[in-house]
Amino acid sequence: MRTLFTAEMSELADDLAAMARHVALAIDRAGEALLTQNAELAQQVIAEDVQLDAIEETVDERCVLLIAQQQPVGLDLRTIIVGLRISAALERMGDLAQHIAEFARRAYPDSAIPDSHVDTIAAMAVAANKVALEIVELLEARDLNVAAGIVSDDDHLDELHATSYRLVLEDGYAATPQEILNVALLSRYFERFGDHAVGVARRIVYLVTGDHTGERSSI
Amino acid sequence: MRTLFTAEMSELADDLAAMARHVALAIDRAGEALLTQNAELAQQVIAEDVQLDAIEETVDERCVLLIAQQQPVGLDLRTIIVGLRISAALERMGDLAQHIAEFARRAYPDSAIPDSHVDTIAAMAVAANKVALEIVELLEARDLNVAAGIVSDDDHLDELHATSYRLVLEDGYAATPQEILNVALLSRYFERFGDHAVGVARRIVYLVTGDHTGERSSI
Repeated sequence: MRTLFTAEMSELADDLAAMARHVALAIDRAGEALLTQNAELAQQVIAEDVQLDAIEETVDERCVLLIAQQQPVGLDLRTIIVGLRISAALERMGDLAQHIAEFARRAYPDSAIPDSHVDTIAAMAVAANKVALEIVELLEARDLNVAAGIVSDDDHLDELHATSYRLVLEDGYAATPQEILNVALLSRYFERFGDHAVGVARRIVYLVTGDHTGERSSI
Repeated sequence: MRTLFTAEMSELADDLAAMARHVALAIDRAGEALLTQNAELAQQVIAEDVQLDAIEETVDERCVLLIAQQQPVGLDLRTIIVGLRISAALERMGDLAQHIAEFARRAYPDSAIPDSHVDTIAAMAVAANKVALEIVELLEARDLNVAAGIVSDDDHLDELHATSYRLVLEDGYAATPQEILNVALLSRYFERFGDHAVGVARRIVYLVTGDHTGERSSI
């Protein structure tokens, strides 16, 4: 019984890693679609989000069955509950990638981003892709140094988000209302993406170390 | 054993209702602070969000203990898992109310909202407060007609959100970049508040009817 449980827990970890890889691909493509006015790539990100939702459903079902069939207690039970929260956060990160892709598609053939913000948003896309890949690595290798990297990359995303808004508020800033609206939301989506990544990282750290400090937050 | 379990499930329902009442008060006050430039009220909403986080922690702990001690299966187990999701959504709704209050505080003594949007944002505040009160009612009375009301009020919030952005994009619209930024985010926060409310409503419907259709989504 114990062996079966461990095997199923391992499948749960595999599913979460699969979700994380999906999210990493989605945010990478969404960023590229946004920065290169690639409507086809944007459409792909949007269309493929249902796959992520489907994996989330599988993960949730697996968690409920694991609890019902194995009646875990203690750390095993908490692991499963944390797994549920990680899957919810990854699903939300996928939604954010999808929202970003929607801006690229809507603005096509124009860019959704004003010239003033191309560098900042490009840097946000790089940082968001980096945290997504770090989550994949964290889920696969459980190397806690990666978690620290995620927190620091999220700090970088927060700085870029602040820069993005500061640019808009500078004296004499000229952009159309549409451009300001785009910057307001795109920057926010990347920033939220980072927040969720930190939430996921903290939960994985909790699983690995049993340290509950800071596990709560941001979902 | 069975009786104890039922009593504890009832406490879980009470905790969720308490969270919902907290959220309803927070969004009501956040809207008022925003529309009347009341920095003190805004500060109160911001300061009291920790209370909501604390109830969420209690709810989560109660859920984990319920599972560990009672080893529920079937509908009982699903009820507890759904309870966890509802508490996460309510906590997030509280965060959104807090974000709205932060805009009121930051803009003080000015209004965060340009004249062009006072009516629309005021209508969003009314609708958001309405869905929050409906969630309280749904949790307390489990009357499924209330769930339909939440969905329709969320539709109204979505329309107001679209109106809000459409106004910004009208020919000749004149506002400062700061005002556009504020409208972009405030409108988005109210709209997300409605999305989470619908997610909560669907989960409660699921609990009451056992109908899983549409339970997933939006968190």
